[in-house]
Amino acid sequence: MTDLILKNVRPMGGALTDLAIHDRIFVENSDPAAEVIDCGGRILIPGLVEAHTHLDKSLLGLPWYRNEVGPRLIDKITNEREVKVSLGLDPQVQSERQAILSVSHGTTHIRSHVDVDTHHGLAGIEGVMATREKLAGIVDIEIVAFPQSSMMPRPGTVELMDEALALGADVVGGIDPCGIERDPKGHLDAVFRLAEKHGKPIDIHLHERDAMGGFSMEEIIARTRAHGMQGKVAISHAFCLGSPDRAYVADLQAQLADERIHILTTAPASAPVPLVRELRAAGILTGAGSDGIRDTWGPYGNADMLERAMFIGLRNNLRRDDEVELALDICTYGGAAIMEAEGYGLGLGCRADCVLVEGETLAEAVALRAKRKLVLKGGRVVARDGACILEAP
Amino acid sequence: MTDLILKNVRPMGGALTDLAIHDRIFVENSDPAAEVIDCGGRILIPGLVEAHTHLDKSLLGLPWYRNEVGPRLIDKITNEREVKVSLGLDPQVQSERQAILSVSHGTTHIRSHVDVDTHHGLAGIEGVMATREKLAGIVDIEIVAFPQSSMMPRPGTVELMDEALALGADVVGGIDPCGIERDPKGHLDAVFRLAEKHGKPIDIHLHERDAMGGFSMEEIIARTRAHGMQGKVAISHAFCLGSPDRAYVADLQAQLADERIHILTTAPASAPVPLVRELRAAGILTGAGSDGIRDTWGPYGNADMLERAMFIGLRNNLRRDDEVELALDICTYGGAAIMEAEGYGLGLGCRADCVLVEGETLAEAVALRAKRKLVLKGGRVVARDGACILEAP
Ligand SMILES: [Zn+2]
Ligand SMILES: [Zn+2]
Repeated sequence: MTDLILKNVRPMGGALTDLAIHDRIFVENSDPAAEVIDCGGRILIPGLVEAHTHLDKSLLGLPWYRNEVGPRLIDKITNEREVKVSLGLDPQVQSERQAILSVSHGTTHIRSHVDVDTHHGLAGIEGVMATREKLAGIVDIEIVAFPQSSMMPRPGTVELMDEALALGADVVGGIDPCGIERDPKGHLDAVFRLAEKHGKPIDIHLHERDAMGGFSMEEIIARTRAHGMQGKVAISHAFCLGSPDRAYVADLQAQLADERIHILTTAPASAPVPLVRELRAAGILTGAGSDGIRDTWGPYGNADMLERAMFIGLRNNLRRDDEVELALDICTYGGAAIMEAEGYGLGLGCRADCVLVEGETLAEAVALRAKRKLVLKGGRVVARDGACILEAP
Repeated sequence: MTDLILKNVRPMGGALTDLAIHDRIFVENSDPAAEVIDCGGRILIPGLVEAHTHLDKSLLGLPWYRNEVGPRLIDKITNEREVKVSLGLDPQVQSERQAILSVSHGTTHIRSHVDVDTHHGLAGIEGVMATREKLAGIVDIEIVAFPQSSMMPRPGTVELMDEALALGADVVGGIDPCGIERDPKGHLDAVFRLAEKHGKPIDIHLHERDAMGGFSMEEIIARTRAHGMQGKVAISHAFCLGSPDRAYVADLQAQLADERIHILTTAPASAPVPLVRELRAAGILTGAGSDGIRDTWGPYGNADMLERAMFIGLRNNLRRDDEVELALDICTYGGAAIMEAEGYGLGLGCRADCVLVEGETLAEAVALRAKRKLVLKGGRVVARDGACILEAP
């Protein structure tokens, strides 16, 4: 690994400086023989963190998929399970395409939920694991074994989840214990049992709203406490925290903070959402993700986590500079902390995973979302001028 | 004006064809001497319509404005009135900057609210009028005289509004009759009196929510009926139509349809919004806009109405292709109909105001929001590859 000097760079929008990188790490003293990159006074931030997506199901690179799917959650789940077959979707190829797109936008860490069901078995897990290996050193990929089609009503799924975790999935996934599983006790007991057996953290999709979502959340909180899994459980979406009953939500948030349960949000414009300023005030670690990108669920998404920071800002009505910086913090440090990304940050001794962004200030970088000039992963250039060094398949 | 042939173009994503333009108009037969532009099979849509923005107050081109403004609407209004002075904001320069950015994204028609107040008098109106003249043939600009700082509590404002309309403003603006004006009868009587006197249409900012907004809307409806102004009144934002009391909203929408009152939305992620599918079903003409772009209110906005179509889609949970096409229709035909844009469309005899977009389908064009290859205004190339032929000042 050649040493590298990032010249004329403004870490987090601060004063102009030079940063030295040795053996993948930010170091104090630069090697006189190091390669020098002039950053032209741009802002440097640590790598963006895509902490909730679905690498296996994107339709990137395929002919346009005409969406005529019904309006209910179950319509989308059923349709997707079938379309995956009819389109011959290859989870390895699709995950590679999306991951490379992510890298082009400055993402250095991805947590991907990957479908596990009796229809497709472990094909998704194997495909994304292959991509993870192929892109090692380019982007870190964490895999959540995700029972998208439900676990309890579909016998054999729990066993497949068990296999997925033995095979190499990093996190135990879960899904609406009431709304989809129709068996909150059965589902959550199974999820926590798998986590205990494999010694792995948990990340549960919870779309349930208001009182029902609150009930499921209370059950998750109770099990986190009972299993001593503080700091190891995340809840994705958590729409119930967007409930109008703010006193009840405040109580839920206090319990989440007590058990160090994390929240992952995509800041959707059309659903109730956890309020990120409140989460911050309550001391709840918060990360963010794109969720599905151009899939059978919907046409949107470009894997740009700076754009996601803007979505968080728009959804949470963040206008002041310090508020917009909070949105960016969620898309960097927040997600990284939840994923327990090693050596994350711009300090001495941190891994040189970082990205140059355009703009005078961090808030402007978020508002502009301009093409990224340079992305480094472990001190190695992995994207330049908005293009990854690898071409997508 | 040279004749022009757009070769290999797909109007509205349909079959490949060639389109001929003569003397600014789409015509049947092409001149053999016409200039030919190969459109490479791209989709052609009519020019995008920015039907609600504030050209006079953008901070585009200025050093970054650090936003530390308080959370209330009145904080933002007061702050802006003062910052305009301290920054020495020139409405002509700022409006030209924003309008040129709009053109680069394929916008051919802009309706801009322009502040009229006792602090700045008609400086905003004069500045945007100068830009309108300067950019004639590049983009059509419609000016709404807008009493941002309120009319009733600030003596002299009604007279300034009157002067603005005499000077050349096209539309009478208004603002929250209760929330800001604190005098719904006084405000709305004044607005409709000005409209009657000058024979001009109306476009009222209505942020008021739920019952209060409904009350103000009922008062607007009553005056539209009394003044026989059917088809000439628009309500911007109309957050009260996003109220949870859907039966009451349905009743309001039926009345709006009866009086042919139009709705303009920016589809904000953090406020209740009119549901565009319901408006369409009720037969209410709907347009869209960016609202303020990078101003003292907030850092966001890039004047891209394809991105706005995506925001409408995200906010209204539009996922199916036909739904995404509705969002695009609002950002083209909807806004154009409200502005009564002459000869708008791609048919024979229509004015050749149009833009090439990327993607296989209209829905993909919205999801991608890629740089626009070509923008025509009256058959003349006004932008290429995402850049306007004019440089911003
Ligand atoms: Zn998800
Ligand atoms: Zn406005």
